[in-house]
Amino acid sequence: MDIQNFSSSLVDTLRQRRQRLAARIDFPAILWSGSSSPRNYPANVYRFRASSHFLYFAGLPLSNAAIRLEAGKLTLFMDDPAPSSALWHGEMPKREEIAQAIGADAAFAIAELESYLEGAATIAVQDAATWTQQSQLLNRWVLPQNQLQGIDLELAKAIVELRLTHDAGALAELRKAAAVTVEAHKAGMAATVNAKIEAQVRGAMEKVIIAHNMTTSYNSIVTVHGEVLHNEQYHHSLQPDDLLLADVGAETEMGWAADVTRTWPVTGKFSSTQRDIYDVVLAAHDACIAKIRPGVEYGEIHLLACTVIAEGLVDLGILQGQPEDLVERDVHSLFFPHGIGHLVGLDVHDMEDLGDLAGYEQGRKRSDRFGLSYLRLNRPLRAGMLVTIEPGFYQVPAILNNSELRSRYQYTVNWERLSEFADVRGIRIEDDVLVTEQGSEVLTVALPTDASAVEELVSG
Amino acid sequence: MDIQNFSSSLVDTLRQRRQRLAARIDFPAILWSGSSSPRNYPANVYRFRASSHFLYFAGLPLSNAAIRLEAGKLTLFMDDPAPSSALWHGEMPKREEIAQAIGADAAFAIAELESYLEGAATIAVQDAATWTQQSQLLNRWVLPQNQLQGIDLELAKAIVELRLTHDAGALAELRKAAAVTVEAHKAGMAATVNAKIEAQVRGAMEKVIIAHNMTTSYNSIVTVHGEVLHNEQYHHSLQPDDLLLADVGAETEMGWAADVTRTWPVTGKFSSTQRDIYDVVLAAHDACIAKIRPGVEYGEIHLLACTVIAEGLVDLGILQGQPEDLVERDVHSLFFPHGIGHLVGLDVHDMEDLGDLAGYEQGRKRSDRFGLSYLRLNRPLRAGMLVTIEPGFYQVPAILNNSELRSRYQYTVNWERLSEFADVRGIRIEDDVLVTEQGSEVLTVALPTDASAVEELVSG
Repeated sequence: MDIQNFSSSLVDTLRQRRQRLAARIDFPAILWSGSSSPRNYPANVYRFRASSHFLYFAGLPLSNAAIRLEAGKLTLFMDDPAPSSALWHGEMPKREEIAQAIGADAAFAIAELESYLEGAATIAVQDAATWTQQSQLLNRWVLPQNQLQGIDLELAKAIVELRLTHDAGALAELRKAAAVTVEAHKAGMAATVNAKIEAQVRGAMEKVIIAHNMTTSYNSIVTVHGEVLHNEQYHHSLQPDDLLLADVGAETEMGWAADVTRTWPVTGKFSSTQRDIYDVVLAAHDACIAKIRPGVEYGEIHLLACTVIAEGLVDLGILQGQPEDLVERDVHSLFFPHGIGHLVGLDVHDMEDLGDLAGYEQGRKRSDRFGLSYLRLNRPLRAGMLVTIEPGFYQVPAILNNSELRSRYQYTVNWERLSEFADVRGIRIEDDVLVTEQGSEVLTVALPTDASAVEELVSG
Repeated sequence: MDIQNFSSSLVDTLRQRRQRLAARIDFPAILWSGSSSPRNYPANVYRFRASSHFLYFAGLPLSNAAIRLEAGKLTLFMDDPAPSSALWHGEMPKREEIAQAIGADAAFAIAELESYLEGAATIAVQDAATWTQQSQLLNRWVLPQNQLQGIDLELAKAIVELRLTHDAGALAELRKAAAVTVEAHKAGMAATVNAKIEAQVRGAMEKVIIAHNMTTSYNSIVTVHGEVLHNEQYHHSLQPDDLLLADVGAETEMGWAADVTRTWPVTGKFSSTQRDIYDVVLAAHDACIAKIRPGVEYGEIHLLACTVIAEGLVDLGILQGQPEDLVERDVHSLFFPHGIGHLVGLDVHDMEDLGDLAGYEQGRKRSDRFGLSYLRLNRPLRAGMLVTIEPGFYQVPAILNNSELRSRYQYTVNWERLSEFADVRGIRIEDDVLVTEQGSEVLTVALPTDASAVEELVSG
């Protein structure tokens, strides 16, 4: 981190965020940044990721720091680096320099925090060292898995209201993450024809992200087994009739995420069955994006995707019936078992550390319905929200071989016709879409979705 | 992980390891594998790394598992994947399949572990979820930071004796890690001339590691500020008179590490001052490797490096005096403030989770002497040990501007002459060296160290 790189706009952005927070709560909040998590021994740590709530108000990925927010004022708590640390870590910015870079009103050593705790709300940080410290200092359990209560819940709700829609500072970062992610996917497509295993394509993609001094915002999915939704294996060889599904996103140094999926043919040429299904998924993708504007219920967008997919599968002779009826009977979920998307921001599933507090409008709960229970976002859209649109088609053995489902949908699915599409195991097309006053803007629009354009990028 | 890939040699290797353990302890040991550590929210985790002690005896990077070792018998405890997990993670190998792949004598659900705890020793795993579970089940504190006691200490000592020297199964993995690391460094050298910032070189290097379905065994150092020993910043631009120091190592899927450093000129051509110092560091590197053989004290190898460096700096007119005297007075530490290396195995600093139990021969303690206190290994060498040899030369401002040191060495250092070497901020040359019956074998020998050969790789 080079704090010289940050302009006065960071100070302004942070000031506005805490003033907006101050308008919503009348008690102080203390947000911890977190500390590194050990990998195989204490000194060999996973690359540090600061808490997203801390990043939102402090702007910089500091470790072992805390901030106090009260009535629009920012107090920074962190220790100056020990003199001996210069040997190992070089001259690090001092507390006073950082305080200036983020526009803090005051700055103290971390030990001083003890005197500033009274009546303060907080949110648990993920690493054990930090939530232990939070619990000890505040003299109550502050655990990531606990249900939020009292002022902590009030604070979380206030932060959700702020973070749900993105300010200009956030958008600038989100655009950077999107641009690098687009480049990574193009590199992945270009690397596929000469790749022998999935890992080689992953390497080509993550290289771009690393080269921009970013990290992946989640563990990459780069697989010929797209039917495994969260596949984190990369050892499979690429066979000529395989589709490669790549769900890979960059995260900026300040923590802002992108989340993009493309699916392409390993040879550079879709088979006719692959292209048929691809176009169904793309039609759903496009229809959803066209519908996005402030006021529209995200749940409606999900159902639109389901309907377009059902329609397409009826046209292909895979399903039989009226698309709306099929969706009502959850038939589409056989092939599209997840939600149409989620919020994106400082977290790739934004604010998921707060459970469904951000994703679900107050008073709403997850559905029990097969195919709706995985919907992560259920709110009317607002200008400034960033959401993914990620329809898919999968032939998941665990679903399609389930005898209960098979008998329930015996006459709805043309199983024989379906068997002709055996070379389509998994397709997903995912973009990051900003809700604007006028409708929407696809931040990742520079990455083609059209099947022929994708083929061209793969074939070079 | 594809368990089909493992041959019967894994079963044999693991059997031999637990028989060797059984010869050293007469109580049962239970080793937990650990669980994923959350990054910014519970479902977004750092890529899982199993505990090294577990990996040594269980062979596979399983999560949420435990093994019980007693009298040469292996019992596996893990749950079969929940049926619903097939949707997200695909069909995972079942407990019985894994038990067979690793040659377990019995296998049970994790809940059964409760009945197998009596009198068992263990070693704390790094993640909080696991050490909490260890502590609760064993009804005593099992914390990574605690001093080992009783049977836990006995177990740790027995494991150290085993892991200090590598068997054929371990060596096969260590050679794989070394080979990929060599390739990564070559890719980094080739990418430098066209790179604008450090991150681009890092991307080129880690791409190779990812493409081989491996991970980095520690956070990479790729920097023009080699004088910052653990620099994890990658944003600096490459300037024509910069040296780039890259300390990057691969780790195989089964957890075995490599650890290699090279330093090369950004332009592909060392300046004469850079080359002079490079050759001093290389002379130390070569002298140390030449001295390695069973029975030699690793501390002696460290002192040899110090002497060769002091000698070289006297020859260059930077230091004045007899090399041996200079080393006795710790003058070399001004420029070479760290140890000559450490053990490598399943951990890049092997078994550092046990403190100095592995690195220091029983009864020995770290020195207070400036320049010796960072020595991580202080034992007579044995055939089968893998150690790094990593001499360096650094101009660390925190050391060279220290007024106490400056006055202490006022007439020993020719400060004016030193100022002519301002374009050498940090050089390190590091290889992984196996102690053999005959002497040594450099596992990373395929990566040149000679200055001209390095220049050639950079210039292409």
